[in-house]
Amino acid sequence: MMVIPENSCIVIFGASGDLTYRKLIPALYHLYENEQLPESFAILGASRTSYSDESYRDKLKLSLQELEKTTPETLDAFCRHIHYQSVDTADVDDYHKLKNKLDELAGQYQFEQRNTLFYLATPPSLYGVIPQCLAAHGLHDETDGWKRLVIEKPFGYDFASAQQLDIDIHQHFKEHQIYRIDHYLGKETVQNLLVFRFANGMFEPLWNRNFIDYVEITGAEFLGVEERGGYYDGSGAVRDMFQNHLLQVLAMVSMEPPSAINADSIRNEVNKVLQSLQPLTEDDLKNNLVLGQYTGSEVRGQFLPGYREEPGVAGDSRTETYVGLKMFINNWRWNNVPFYVRTGKRLPTRVTEVVIHFKQTPHPVFGQNAPENKLVIRIQPDEGILMSFGLKQPGAGFKAKEASMEFHYASLEETQMLTAYERLLLDALNGDATLFARTDAVEACWKFVQPILDYKQDPTSLYGYACGTWGPKESDDLLTNDGRTWRFPCKNLTNTDYCEL
Amino acid sequence: MMVIPENSCIVIFGASGDLTYRKLIPALYHLYENEQLPESFAILGASRTSYSDESYRDKLKLSLQELEKTTPETLDAFCRHIHYQSVDTADVDDYHKLKNKLDELAGQYQFEQRNTLFYLATPPSLYGVIPQCLAAHGLHDETDGWKRLVIEKPFGYDFASAQQLDIDIHQHFKEHQIYRIDHYLGKETVQNLLVFRFANGMFEPLWNRNFIDYVEITGAEFLGVEERGGYYDGSGAVRDMFQNHLLQVLAMVSMEPPSAINADSIRNEVNKVLQSLQPLTEDDLKNNLVLGQYTGSEVRGQFLPGYREEPGVAGDSRTETYVGLKMFINNWRWNNVPFYVRTGKRLPTRVTEVVIHFKQTPHPVFGQNAPENKLVIRIQPDEGILMSFGLKQPGAGFKAKEASMEFHYASLEETQMLTAYERLLLDALNGDATLFARTDAVEACWKFVQPILDYKQDPTSLYGYACGTWGPKESDDLLTNDGRTWRFPCKNLTNTDYCEL
Repeated sequence: MMVIPENSCIVIFGASGDLTYRKLIPALYHLYENEQLPESFAILGASRTSYSDESYRDKLKLSLQELEKTTPETLDAFCRHIHYQSVDTADVDDYHKLKNKLDELAGQYQFEQRNTLFYLATPPSLYGVIPQCLAAHGLHDETDGWKRLVIEKPFGYDFASAQQLDIDIHQHFKEHQIYRIDHYLGKETVQNLLVFRFANGMFEPLWNRNFIDYVEITGAEFLGVEERGGYYDGSGAVRDMFQNHLLQVLAMVSMEPPSAINADSIRNEVNKVLQSLQPLTEDDLKNNLVLGQYTGSEVRGQFLPGYREEPGVAGDSRTETYVGLKMFINNWRWNNVPFYVRTGKRLPTRVTEVVIHFKQTPHPVFGQNAPENKLVIRIQPDEGILMSFGLKQPGAGFKAKEASMEFHYASLEETQMLTAYERLLLDALNGDATLFARTDAVEACWKFVQPILDYKQDPTSLYGYACGTWGPKESDDLLTNDGRTWRFPCKNLTNTDYCEL
Repeated sequence: MMVIPENSCIVIFGASGDLTYRKLIPALYHLYENEQLPESFAILGASRTSYSDESYRDKLKLSLQELEKTTPETLDAFCRHIHYQSVDTADVDDYHKLKNKLDELAGQYQFEQRNTLFYLATPPSLYGVIPQCLAAHGLHDETDGWKRLVIEKPFGYDFASAQQLDIDIHQHFKEHQIYRIDHYLGKETVQNLLVFRFANGMFEPLWNRNFIDYVEITGAEFLGVEERGGYYDGSGAVRDMFQNHLLQVLAMVSMEPPSAINADSIRNEVNKVLQSLQPLTEDDLKNNLVLGQYTGSEVRGQFLPGYREEPGVAGDSRTETYVGLKMFINNWRWNNVPFYVRTGKRLPTRVTEVVIHFKQTPHPVFGQNAPENKLVIRIQPDEGILMSFGLKQPGAGFKAKEASMEFHYASLEETQMLTAYERLLLDALNGDATLFARTDAVEACWKFVQPILDYKQDPTSLYGYACGTWGPKESDDLLTNDGRTWRFPCKNLTNTDYCEL
């Protein structure tokens, strides 16, 4: 089952950045520890900062020791694969240094093929530049081995810029070389949405407008913007969470069965459903969309500042930290089934989940108040599945009572759950693009959210909500107007540390 | 919700018998303790043995104290409602004593209506006689209050005798007065089959030949015939378990949704599905039926005698203690879906359960070996529901792995689960016949099993099986011939005390 990637060199742009330290290097370390990296491989850090191989290794070692339970031997062995090249990544002439270093490593590691993965862990402004510079030095050319680009989010800033970025990159790189990362797709439980739906005979027959009443998708964060205020203030929840992560989750929940499990088949279906999203009208923006921004409030005895008080955020910022949207999919399967999607910062807890609400029985012989049938697919934390349904209430008569069953991923014997970055790095090294966003899907997402981005300019578009609540009260109306309510993963609105499934 | 029965007198024929001590009186005591009996009620024991009210009370008191956690006050109060009349139940002239005693009690308890429940806890030979004797003294007449007969199993000995018994009783009693008890129907988890199926929107759409591959129904006992050898040797597993209990469970699993929850609507559907059972052909009897008898064997270090060595059993008995049958229901919902039904004594454990096996995905994108989808409805012990399905196996790729969720009835907050006899006594007192077998259903069951009863005469019809195994190995072939296997509720075939869901 386990496929070991071909010998290759992994180049990380943005090598001195936070993502590299916190996610990429630990992920590579784990893959190494589990013998999932190629027999022969080099990791080459590249950024403006000046390091020697040795001083860069020391820096990474420190951060790995802090993060991980490591053994000194494995750590040393791993670090011997790490190298560094300082480059001015915006300056095309400077890339000869990189090329020389790659040639040198190819000799040192005796690479027969010059397979290279370029990981762009840089500010988005460089996503168009780096591929161009690489191409100028022939580093996009696959005649002597594959060349792949891994591009971090956000892929574009809006519909127009995403299209432009795509044009820029496609000047030199072909679509099959481009791996647009969405770390949500790397999560076991997001991938499980596919397996759960398409490996079981008993759920798929119910998975349509005939049996499903509505669907909720929640991506809640307890944290605020933390140190990212400067970046976030130019972005907001629609771009940062909704446009990519939540729409991808929605696609996994709603797509048609793929003809096979491979990158083309799956991404064809993801794209198809994203293109079927019902475009938002003026009316939708007014009535089915709620944008919010958190305001200072005391939560669990501690005062949390409002968004405008966060470092790096403008005092009059109108950036949204919450989005709630009622949306539809225009196809045979989902016509008229509302999808209620929400995400926000400074909500009562951190939780990502999908809730499938099944319709009531068509003929409620056991009374009108039959318990709801629902399926909660928890993506994080406490990954698992919860199913609620009605059972006979013990005693005389035939009254139904809500009961539930749960499955927790943690109960599986296997201990090795790959983290999102481990899975995605491994897939990119193996040339499996299944879990990476394809250009048409990215475009469809931007196209869908563009009206929201435009609507943000409207001076009446933003509501406040206190830290530690479930968003503006207007977002409750999205459901209560339809006689429904959001599922609250925590019993009370605030003061909940841990969120039971 | 709680309905208290009308004031009435409960007459128990067979008052000195085992069933009265072990089941009926404890059930009545619990109902009394929970204030579910009428404001004014009398219990009148009747049998040949001679007791005074006082000596009969003392006898019951002793047995209640042994069985129950009782308080002396409640016990005394309850026993004051108990009376006794010795009657030769086969002698019609002797019934004037009973009539006099009932008149006396009616005065003593100031009954405005002469509501009377006659519970026939006697040998089956008296089921035809007692109603006739009662009628001879006008005790069937409902002009001064309802008169109901509760009749214990077995209702008849075969198709012909069941028909005759029905004719005899119907000479004087109307169908609405007759409550044929099947204590399986009194079990919470059997009733829950209805609620589970018809109070939920998400199961019923799957509950048919399009999505269900096959169904197993198992009623396994660890015990042998114990003290009942004399009775059992003239009966056998087909009459004792299959014809009544298991066919009733099968009906609950397979019936169409009733138009309402009441005795007529539900029993119409039960009858309909029982009349749709595909009649057994010569071929079925040879190939789809396995009868077995247990033989002596060591189980958990203890030698258990064979059936023929049991007290009261003929040394050359050919009575079956095991039945396994593959059967079909001829209707739109179930055409071609096999129901594999088995029951037996001296099997590895005591368990009653229904297993619904769903079909594989029509298009197994995640490989041919997708985990099975099944639903186990456990009737006893550890009543509950288990659902197995496929989830993503953690790690690279998209392999599915079997996972499961469980619900245990014991986890419900309510502590008061009525026992089968409590529920059924209460229902009979309230005139609710929903959970009692109606004449047409009883007839349909006998009609279906009659070919098996005839086939028992065939000298090649009986296989042996060692105590502590899951029946004759030929019963495994019923499924293996179809490429399937029985679910074994216990991991190993013997030495399992407790049987996890």
